[in-house]
Amino acid sequence: MSGHLVASYDADLKELKQRILTMGGLVEKMISDAIKSLVERDTELAEQVIARDHEVNSHEVAIDERCLELLALRQPTGRDLRFITLAMKIVTDLERVGDKCANMSKRARQLNQEPPLKPYIDIPRMAIQVEVMIKEALDAFVQGDDQLAVKVCKDDQLVDELNEQVQRELYTYMIEDPSTISRAMRLTYISKSLERIADHATNIAEMVIFMVKGKDIRHTLA
Amino acid sequence: MSGHLVASYDADLKELKQRILTMGGLVEKMISDAIKSLVERDTELAEQVIARDHEVNSHEVAIDERCLELLALRQPTGRDLRFITLAMKIVTDLERVGDKCANMSKRARQLNQEPPLKPYIDIPRMAIQVEVMIKEALDAFVQGDDQLAVKVCKDDQLVDELNEQVQRELYTYMIEDPSTISRAMRLTYISKSLERIADHATNIAEMVIFMVKGKDIRHTLA
Repeated sequence: MSGHLVASYDADLKELKQRILTMGGLVEKMISDAIKSLVERDTELAEQVIARDHEVNSHEVAIDERCLELLALRQPTGRDLRFITLAMKIVTDLERVGDKCANMSKRARQLNQEPPLKPYIDIPRMAIQVEVMIKEALDAFVQGDDQLAVKVCKDDQLVDELNEQVQRELYTYMIEDPSTISRAMRLTYISKSLERIADHATNIAEMVIFMVKGKDIRHTLA
Repeated sequence: MSGHLVASYDADLKELKQRILTMGGLVEKMISDAIKSLVERDTELAEQVIARDHEVNSHEVAIDERCLELLALRQPTGRDLRFITLAMKIVTDLERVGDKCANMSKRARQLNQEPPLKPYIDIPRMAIQVEVMIKEALDAFVQGDDQLAVKVCKDDQLVDELNEQVQRELYTYMIEDPSTISRAMRLTYISKSLERIADHATNIAEMVIFMVKGKDIRHTLA
């Protein structure tokens, strides 16, 4: 391969990384805005998050197509091949995170029409943690940083614990006052969605460790 | 490429398809067994489903590796390239379906230790529907059958409706008798898990339509 082609291949990979980080940034913003629309009872913001889901979908389709082009034109092997095929898996995860954000905002929109059940403390804390996990998982991917990916996998535990705590607390509300059940169920859904977004980050991180180390820890850490 | 190489490439693709169907068969069995462990209160079967999750994970890793080998050695383009990269996405979906089956069996194991809340009618009906959707999505993939894939996308609606119905019914139980809340919440979780498995089938089907038609309907059917 000529020097020119190699240089432009590097530029292609760099551009692919940039596109994934851009898509990631959009999704991270959706996580924080979805929770903000709940905490600040901002239904207009909830509508915006729901609308942004389409934008995430367009990113997924475009990045997928770009990866197929790179595979067909560049015929990569080894690490580059793993990188590009992993990019295709990662955008699928990101797209589903976008879906979950839109769904959380739909629940927020419903909750905003009823009296607040309780002040939200643990859910915003979870959301911050989860947003960082998505960001770090993607940084680990583009930088090939397996140490950062290991950190993401470990942080998943914290989110699981916060979710358990939220579930227990909401359960207590429901038991003590059945008139809270409908609202508590919606909050349960939001808390579980955050926990599932953390699972997506963990899935990404485990695949990154495999890409970097060449061995599979996907099913040994659990 | 020599005739020999072409023939062996066809054999490679055929073998890849077979491996995906085998993994799919395992996952379909896990769906029906997870629900059987609930309906028949069979905790031993629940344990078996939980244990089988590891087997699904091994399939995922092995098929992923095989796809990377085929990409590196055969350097496919066009339709074969789409097929193999899609196989890599699909096994990720199947692995996560396996996770959900294991989690449903964990809830069944808990429910089996308490008095039954109610006879299960809609949940087994959903499970049958969902299992068929996974099977048909994979058949559509290996046969390149976009009509079958369209059917899977449409069937998702039925599962969503059954899930809504189950959620409403369980909500009524909780409101009327708070002592049922803990059991009803576990059943809510199982019903939602089935609905999410149907979403995985739909995701697979949408990607198959894209593979066959070369255009993206992933985000237009919703």
